Amino acid sequence: MDDAKITAAFYRGNKSFTVEPATAVPPGAGEVAVRVAYCGICGTDMHVYHGNMDSRIGFERVIGHEMSGVIDAVGEGVDGLAIGQKVVVRPLDHCGDCPACKAGHQHVCHNLKFLGLDTDGAFQEVWTVPAHTIHKLPGDMALDHAALIEPTAVACHDVRMSGLAAGEDAVVIGGGPIGILVAMVARDTGASVVISEVNPNRLKIAQAMGFETINPLETDLVAEVNRRTGDKGADVVFEVSGSQPGVDAMTDVAATRGRIVMVAIHAQKPQVDMFRFFWRELQLVGVRVYEPEDYEKAIAIIASGGVDADTFITDVSPLSDIQAAFESLDASPTAMKSLIKVGDV
Amino acid sequence: MDDAKITAAFYRGNKSFTVEPATAVPPGAGEVAVRVAYCGICGTDMHVYHGNMDSRIGFERVIGHEMSGVIDAVGEGVDGLAIGQKVVVRPLDHCGDCPACKAGHQHVCHNLKFLGLDTDGAFQEVWTVPAHTIHKLPGDMALDHAALIEPTAVACHDVRMSGLAAGEDAVVIGGGPIGILVAMVARDTGASVVISEVNPNRLKIAQAMGFETINPLETDLVAEVNRRTGDKGADVVFEVSGSQPGVDAMTDVAATRGRIVMVAIHAQKPQVDMFRFFWRELQLVGVRVYEPEDYEKAIAIIASGGVDADTFITDVSPLSDIQAAFESLDASPTAMKSLIKVGDV
Repeated sequence: MDDAKITAAFYRGNKSFTVEPATAVPPGAGEVAVRVAYCGICGTDMHVYHGNMDSRIGFERVIGHEMSGVIDAVGEGVDGLAIGQKVVVRPLDHCGDCPACKAGHQHVCHNLKFLGLDTDGAFQEVWTVPAHTIHKLPGDMALDHAALIEPTAVACHDVRMSGLAAGEDAVVIGGGPIGILVAMVARDTGASVVISEVNPNRLKIAQAMGFETINPLETDLVAEVNRRTGDKGADVVFEVSGSQPGVDAMTDVAATRGRIVMVAIHAQKPQVDMFRFFWRELQLVGVRVYEPEDYEKAIAIIASGGVDADTFITDVSPLSDIQAAFESLDASPTAMKSLIKVGDV
Repeated sequence: MDDAKITAAFYRGNKSFTVEPATAVPPGAGEVAVRVAYCGICGTDMHVYHGNMDSRIGFERVIGHEMSGVIDAVGEGVDGLAIGQKVVVRPLDHCGDCPACKAGHQHVCHNLKFLGLDTDGAFQEVWTVPAHTIHKLPGDMALDHAALIEPTAVACHDVRMSGLAAGEDAVVIGGGPIGILVAMVARDTGASVVISEVNPNRLKIAQAMGFETINPLETDLVAEVNRRTGDKGADVVFEVSGSQPGVDAMTDVAATRGRIVMVAIHAQKPQVDMFRFFWRELQLVGVRVYEPEDYEKAIAIIASGGVDADTFITDVSPLSDIQAAFESLDASPTAMKSLIKVGDV
């Protein structure tokens, strides 16, 4: 692996990437090198592309983290991982020392490094990472499907943290990629799921995936949820819209003692109906990334077909076309998940 | 008991009560009549006094619900309650039919009747209530102390719903009567408790009760909580202030995965830091009134001296002086709990 020549895509600022020759990083002690097969474009990657994270990312960074690949080389002291093993990377590296780590919540470490943002990521042919971030895949899993494991793990974490049980009523507010995955995992749990979304293209995609949908601009969302649930309301609400109307709706549609999961990242402080929290004893659950068990669950769901991967993946481009892939995704009203085929593995 | 003449205080609107002769209601099937000993003045009673609830209450209403007394008469079909038994009333009557009742959450029934607001209450010498609302007291319990059971049950519910455990760090934002009781129950649970309060009189009272206090107008609350907790933050935060600064502080002082309990009633929608909920995986728990087990816990805490009742009760007035008692409490910056001595039992 030493001095192995690879191709990598570098974020250069101003909505641009350059695809250039680079040198693979040989795995040190406790590290592995992964030959990357596919890497999806995350909403966070779009934030990078738009320049919103320049101070954190810089202009020499290889981003990308929604990946799949095979083990290419193994560093000293790494056991149980053989070259050729299909894997995904859980792109979180924790400090082990902060109050969150000490309390067992390493995934929200106060000094968390997010691989592919705070360190180089998977839009390169060989990605070297700490071995503790590796999850093994079944040998027969398609590696394009496997690139959905990272966002599916987000959804698995959200659903697990909600305590959603089979037979319960769930409302997903916001039908973008994460909202759809949350809905898929919720459906896989055995819950009755409705997606609230205002974008007609996204509504069509959700419907094509077999979901019940409500457009709250056309239908009274609260009345409709109450009608469907015998006036009970939703046992679990996922707020994925990141909008004030979404925050207004989340408290209005929730059942007494309903759990509201805050999936969206609200950069501004929305107004929240705290009276309703009191009146109906609602609970709000903040959720961020995933824990190892969420990755294992996501692998199982992808393996079982619980996520409709072929419909969900709307575009695949080679690494050489990464610039066009970002531009196209940014402009597309109908795209769900764009993958970059980083290399042949 | 038939046609028994009693004295009752009627709310007449415009910050006024009249104390008049009345007739005790004889207990029907499934009801009991309680001879009322003491009844505290609740924050909700002050809202009534200020005219904020006139449309709900009307001008013929006997209010009051923070009471203690003894069984005076028992209706048909009521077992296990003997005349002379010391009791308190859990002033909630549920419908049994709504989604909340069907889910086992009768205390937040969608058609809940709050006794002493939606029906006549305990500022009368004999109060007739459904037998299912009765909790028995130990024979040696002082009935003035027992009048604190209802607000203590609120605090027991709040603390129970938070999952607070011995050794955890709790911050109570707001040191009024309910905040102090929450702090007492939290301390009784074995937690380390700090009260944040801006009113110097309330700070003095909290300190006299042995609490650590922070005045956030003088001390950086977040820095101080972090200093006390090794930069961890508070495991549990009780927002009892009902203010925007309280809502701002609740997310800032909470530890990763901290639980924030929404005790205050926010009539307006405050702005809430949803990013922080995401970033630290915070949880918010809405809480309202109490369940039977909270009453039993409150009785045990009052019996054991876990609430400093003699310090907490700052005034006792006879029923004939109820008007002056409300006026005095409304004007007092130092009062904590005012009791009305309704009758000799």
